[in-house]
Amino acid sequence: MKDSAKKKTTMKPGLRLGILGGGQLARMLALAAYPYGITPHIFAAHREEPAAQVAPEFFAGKADDAEALKAFLKSCDVVTFESEFLNADLLERLSLSEKIPLFPRPALMGQLQDRLSQKQLLEKYKIPTAPYGKIDQWTDIEALIDLGREIVVKQRRFGYDGYGTFFVDTKSGQKSWDEIRQKTKEGFIGEKKISFRRELALLLARDRHGTIIDFPLVESKQTNARCDWVMGPIKHSKELALRKKLKTFLTKENYVGVMAFELFDDGKQLLVNEIAPRVHNSGHYSQEALTLSQFQAHVLAVAGYRLTPPQVLAPFAMANLLGESEQTPHWSDQLWTTSAPGQLHWYGKQSNRAHRKMGHLNALGKTPKAALKTALAARRKVQL
Amino acid sequence: MKDSAKKKTTMKPGLRLGILGGGQLARMLALAAYPYGITPHIFAAHREEPAAQVAPEFFAGKADDAEALKAFLKSCDVVTFESEFLNADLLERLSLSEKIPLFPRPALMGQLQDRLSQKQLLEKYKIPTAPYGKIDQWTDIEALIDLGREIVVKQRRFGYDGYGTFFVDTKSGQKSWDEIRQKTKEGFIGEKKISFRRELALLLARDRHGTIIDFPLVESKQTNARCDWVMGPIKHSKELALRKKLKTFLTKENYVGVMAFELFDDGKQLLVNEIAPRVHNSGHYSQEALTLSQFQAHVLAVAGYRLTPPQVLAPFAMANLLGESEQTPHWSDQLWTTSAPGQLHWYGKQSNRAHRKMGHLNALGKTPKAALKTALAARRKVQL
Repeated sequence: MKDSAKKKTTMKPGLRLGILGGGQLARMLALAAYPYGITPHIFAAHREEPAAQVAPEFFAGKADDAEALKAFLKSCDVVTFESEFLNADLLERLSLSEKIPLFPRPALMGQLQDRLSQKQLLEKYKIPTAPYGKIDQWTDIEALIDLGREIVVKQRRFGYDGYGTFFVDTKSGQKSWDEIRQKTKEGFIGEKKISFRRELALLLARDRHGTIIDFPLVESKQTNARCDWVMGPIKHSKELALRKKLKTFLTKENYVGVMAFELFDDGKQLLVNEIAPRVHNSGHYSQEALTLSQFQAHVLAVAGYRLTPPQVLAPFAMANLLGESEQTPHWSDQLWTTSAPGQLHWYGKQSNRAHRKMGHLNALGKTPKAALKTALAARRKVQL
Repeated sequence: MKDSAKKKTTMKPGLRLGILGGGQLARMLALAAYPYGITPHIFAAHREEPAAQVAPEFFAGKADDAEALKAFLKSCDVVTFESEFLNADLLERLSLSEKIPLFPRPALMGQLQDRLSQKQLLEKYKIPTAPYGKIDQWTDIEALIDLGREIVVKQRRFGYDGYGTFFVDTKSGQKSWDEIRQKTKEGFIGEKKISFRRELALLLARDRHGTIIDFPLVESKQTNARCDWVMGPIKHSKELALRKKLKTFLTKENYVGVMAFELFDDGKQLLVNEIAPRVHNSGHYSQEALTLSQFQAHVLAVAGYRLTPPQVLAPFAMANLLGESEQTPHWSDQLWTTSAPGQLHWYGKQSNRAHRKMGHLNALGKTPKAALKTALAARRKVQL
């Protein structure tokens, strides 16, 4: 399954890396690409989008426009994406017809963007996850009563940051179910509601030669279904066993790039809650805390480099900067104290609005909690 | 002399930072600016130059074109530069007429770009430096015999990387002096030849509010008058006394931005060999080794932020990637081993040629020497 486990690849300057998407993840991928002599090509709707702002090689187009995508692919040597909510079939077809490699593979992206086939993949590789069932109608929910009186109903496709997630009572919830099913034509799954001690996350990255590298386990605090902060590194007794299964999954699926795993720690085991075939908010800390960031790892993997494992430079934390109003954001001319270092990452979005991810703050410290304290203190100096 | 020692400044996204110059220093300044929500505007001759490649806001123009410079300044909120070899009078005049602040101040840049007035500044602030004399004619060289039989003759302006530096025998060197003076209309100074144990370097940065931050002392290895590698941090008994004098200099001159000092360690004292009013090759290590890089510090200082001192994350080294031929450069798909982390910084220059600075490699290690070993091992995998 490996592309070229033995084959020596020689890298040259000027490789053109296409990135589908113009948001903050694409922006940080583009900024990570330049130091390797890799030229990011951005495909997005508008010149004003965060990624297009940092890349002269901008290609305007919509994600479902086959002709625009084809022209974009022709301008690139290799292509990746920042969001898994793309038309996997279309991308697979264009990648083959234009002979431009696209990583991670669109077929797998397609499987992961549907929560049902994502669950089936987890089952296939015996990766612990919350028990679930497919839901088409009310009786399917009633049938899930063994998972608990209240279950979590999730839209199968295009749900994110809590959108498309609902709690439904398996005995008395028919009315709310009727409302939920009106909201979308997408199907649903029903999942056992896990009473977790904390939410954790980890990243793995796999290169085109088959090497997989580990990123540390982190705690990820969700507030109102959005990532509020992250800190790490964290230890867990089940971590190694889980990593082993996840690596088997990546290898067997011939995955290339960073993959993010959101986890529940229920006090006993680690359950995989969600998978994202891309760089992820829970990995932003890596920009300052590791010798290799998730953005660098993804760029290198996709471009054909051999990955070497990142080292943790110091305990770390990340705090998201989420919009609170439509006012112009502003912040202190001194976000950090003399003893506590950190870094602002601003995304350059054209307008502020409530709950919007506008940027994040990375901090280092003697412990994860000390780093978190620094990050949160800096966040209080930002008016959003 | 301080801009606003007490005044609180509020930062907003979208500040437009003009950078005069399109080379690698401008490129790395631009890449450092984006995460702060600062938009770099690049003024350079060609779209293909390293900095223009990473910035959609590109303004084509020549450094002595007053009209082009004026239009560029109008597009910016604040302006800086990557090279001190600019027309200081013109920039000072345009900065005043267009009311666009330009840091570091052009007047000081003008003084520093002339080795004679640079020496006079060092004398003014009692900063140790090699004894020297002004040279207009052969008898001026003969008169410097007290500095040693052989002296170093340096072109006053536009010398760099060994260009414009010569060794002349004060007794028998009249013929070679006659040849040297034919090469340029610029004047010369004659300097005592220092027999140094090693060359060192350090950076300071001062913000618009008057705060000065320290960067560590480093060893800087020059080969054929070009920077070969750097490692640090290094200790020296005279370091603190020197830093104190340098800080007085920066404060009294109301300097804003990063200033680089190249030093001779003659076994007893630290002598300042050269000053550059800008980010510097000897400070590239800071991108990976410190919590704040020289590029970040310069951008923040010029933009109006308050600086906080960088912390050293690990002992470090930097190896320059200097062109050796006109072939297309290429390198291994694995520059680093699993135990030794590092980072490639490629400048994206359009053509390779002998002695040209094409990129650099930063490495970390348990000691400066271990980091240097890693950087040099990686460099052997690059074909230039």
